[in-house]
Amino acid sequence: MADSPNCDLKSLSPLQLFERVTEQGEKVRALKAGKAPKDEIDAAVRMLLSLKLSYKTTTGQDYRAGLPPKDLVLINNGTTKEEEEDLVDPWTVQTSNAKGVDYDKLIVRFGSSKIDTDLINRIERATGQKPHHFLRRGIFFSHRDMDQILDAYENKKSFYLYTGRGPSSQAMHVGHLIPFMFTKWLQEVFDVPLVIQLTDDEKYLWKDMTVEKAYEYAKENAKDIIACGFDINKTFIFSDLDYLGASPGFYKNIVKVQKHVTFNQVKGIFGFTDSDCIGKISFPAIQAAPSFSSSFPQIFNGKENIQCLIPCAIDQDPYFRMTRDVAPRIGQPKPALLHSVFFPALQGAQTKMSASDANSSIFLTDTPKQIKTKINKHAFSGGRDTIEEHRKYGGNCDVDVSFMYLTFFLEDDDRLEQLKQAYTSGELLTGELKKVLIETMQPLIAAHQERRKQVTDEVVKQFMTPRKLAFEF
Amino acid sequence: MADSPNCDLKSLSPLQLFERVTEQGEKVRALKAGKAPKDEIDAAVRMLLSLKLSYKTTTGQDYRAGLPPKDLVLINNGTTKEEEEDLVDPWTVQTSNAKGVDYDKLIVRFGSSKIDTDLINRIERATGQKPHHFLRRGIFFSHRDMDQILDAYENKKSFYLYTGRGPSSQAMHVGHLIPFMFTKWLQEVFDVPLVIQLTDDEKYLWKDMTVEKAYEYAKENAKDIIACGFDINKTFIFSDLDYLGASPGFYKNIVKVQKHVTFNQVKGIFGFTDSDCIGKISFPAIQAAPSFSSSFPQIFNGKENIQCLIPCAIDQDPYFRMTRDVAPRIGQPKPALLHSVFFPALQGAQTKMSASDANSSIFLTDTPKQIKTKINKHAFSGGRDTIEEHRKYGGNCDVDVSFMYLTFFLEDDDRLEQLKQAYTSGELLTGELKKVLIETMQPLIAAHQERRKQVTDEVVKQFMTPRKLAFEF
Repeated sequence: MADSPNCDLKSLSPLQLFERVTEQGEKVRALKAGKAPKDEIDAAVRMLLSLKLSYKTTTGQDYRAGLPPKDLVLINNGTTKEEEEDLVDPWTVQTSNAKGVDYDKLIVRFGSSKIDTDLINRIERATGQKPHHFLRRGIFFSHRDMDQILDAYENKKSFYLYTGRGPSSQAMHVGHLIPFMFTKWLQEVFDVPLVIQLTDDEKYLWKDMTVEKAYEYAKENAKDIIACGFDINKTFIFSDLDYLGASPGFYKNIVKVQKHVTFNQVKGIFGFTDSDCIGKISFPAIQAAPSFSSSFPQIFNGKENIQCLIPCAIDQDPYFRMTRDVAPRIGQPKPALLHSVFFPALQGAQTKMSASDANSSIFLTDTPKQIKTKINKHAFSGGRDTIEEHRKYGGNCDVDVSFMYLTFFLEDDDRLEQLKQAYTSGELLTGELKKVLIETMQPLIAAHQERRKQVTDEVVKQFMTPRKLAFEF
Repeated sequence: MADSPNCDLKSLSPLQLFERVTEQGEKVRALKAGKAPKDEIDAAVRMLLSLKLSYKTTTGQDYRAGLPPKDLVLINNGTTKEEEEDLVDPWTVQTSNAKGVDYDKLIVRFGSSKIDTDLINRIERATGQKPHHFLRRGIFFSHRDMDQILDAYENKKSFYLYTGRGPSSQAMHVGHLIPFMFTKWLQEVFDVPLVIQLTDDEKYLWKDMTVEKAYEYAKENAKDIIACGFDINKTFIFSDLDYLGASPGFYKNIVKVQKHVTFNQVKGIFGFTDSDCIGKISFPAIQAAPSFSSSFPQIFNGKENIQCLIPCAIDQDPYFRMTRDVAPRIGQPKPALLHSVFFPALQGAQTKMSASDANSSIFLTDTPKQIKTKINKHAFSGGRDTIEEHRKYGGNCDVDVSFMYLTFFLEDDDRLEQLKQAYTSGELLTGELKKVLIETMQPLIAAHQERRKQVTDEVVKQFMTPRKLAFEF
């Protein structure tokens, strides 16, 4: 690389710039790891900062390790048909539509099935419980083989639940709760065991983070997850960094998946390139393996081939499309899936809420005052520009983030419908709608914080200890 | 793929044919795993056999999974300069020279250092022991940083040994013993602990073999290794399939290596392609990680950054070139290496002895009669065509496999020198030289078999149990 990073950087494409920043970051790390002289390290760091600045100037985005700019370009230059498509993969969710991703199109693209009224009614019949409002309101909107899960369940053949989280930081936001709230409900109404994977190894591979830090985040995140109210006798939470080195059954399934997936395949599914590290390339097998009950000999008392059901946001589907492709080739049942929509950022449904942007998120640690300020200041409004216009034409619930959040967190169907009509008719103003949201979120998060306080290190340790769960198959 | 496999196969390159066979093999496995109808499986198997036949006709070689034909082509069409080079990687050793691989050239190509008289003398001074005949005779001929190991050792700073084996079958041959015989000597004279990796996961990934079979071979091979006489208090033998799932320290080092090596790099070092499975692509990190003492917290009582010395055949060097490149970037010391030459096949030194060709190998299970027959029938001779010519011109020890084997197994330097002179002068006939070899190998293998009988499953279990080794650092 030339000594002056600015001379020819303008001629570089965003992707080339991205690679320069990545290379320089690696160089800095290598120098530090190799205990190079201080001035050599300083010079390399200066160049890194300079490159990052050029990157930001060119792309309008902060450099983020592991997230190449092509994903952003897809959105910004949306001129051809292909480029207009929503971008949905495990690392990026982007759409140009303020209403959010077109989920009906996604079902067609991913080849999954819509959760329709028939399926929801069947779940109600099978469990004898009113369906969760996430089902009633289309927040969990797509599935794979849920009908087979119900067929078996009706014939007294049970299953286990598997979900997970990538512990990228200490702070979880309300969007992260969605799959866990729903999974808790599934665990209760179906009375089944649950495994929760914390992919700290993934975060170590993708982020500029030490192994120790990733593991620390995993344990911190476990507290927030436990605070959702999972049954300690039926729930096993594990960090990959911990459990992979504690269970030969898990590693055996990983290596089996790794034998049956080629680089060509992960390139097609996840967009990996030749410059990606081999850890990223082989990681999908690690997210796949918990779909097979033999990964948990202690948990299931050695019982294999128990059917697995995975509730997750739809951006995780690529991992499980791969898993379902491999499963029969290694003599395992395909996991079934329930997909949720994304939880929108405060600024609007064009992208999902991200923990790395404090203003796009309501964190589980936010105070009542912070919650109020963030909603008032940042929540994208579907209201009109003036009170007069709003009274006359009404607000647009389809793009109003406060209303969207209420569909997630306000359980009372009648109240929600009233709010919708009042807002659409112009009777209810944006400030009033935001007030309802604030009053909904504040007690919800305060209650979460209260429950989290009860989660001691000892409780975390119990949840994370491999042990037989209280269930017979 | 077209239904008739033969119509257009002649126009395909060996590599394309190889890929067709591989694809068809995968298809057959998928059909079997998916319990497809019998006639569908039968048709796929017929096509597979037909493709294998075409492959053999075109390349003159049997199809071997994971071993693409380009390696062979390199040898057979040796017309350009590059193609004339010896081919040496972890899966293939091939040369067109009957004397075997040109090891001096290999040192230059690999960038290692020659083990010269000075270094051998230094080892003698440091240990107070006569150097092993493998050192005196150039069988261990190349090294990396052995001088640093000795510097530290002379300053009372010790190290540990790491070697390994890929358990591709139950049967080990005499060539497999070379690194273990030498490692045992190193363990004795330096009085250091030793870890031995059995890469059963690698064999599962590369061969058409179940996980269970690979693990079974690992335990069987452990018996032959233990029979070499390792100190049970200072030796830990582990199967990857077992130990990776039993030691978070090991997995953490693996994932650290995996973060710092790209697909581009393993493509360059190992020749992987986009059609390789992600397990192969990430495997090099698993062979790298035992180079770091933190992979064995129980063994070394949690002590990290202990220097590692790896005795191995030089075809394993690519793994450790990669490891040495990564080590400083993850804050670990680079492992040092001692490289051996290959043990030649009975048919000649153009390739190394392979367990998959019964006639190229003397197995550790062979009877005295089998040993005699194999040597008499297959050992490539450097003698002349007739007794008269032999008496007149003498034999050629440089290409005579019986003589080569004696350099490995006949410890008496004077006797070996006498044999060399007598054979070169024509005084000693090929049959007489073979008789000396037979009389050397028969008691050696009988003694090994006797020791192996003493190795009970209980002893294997002890060696393979992670535990603190009897050594303080």
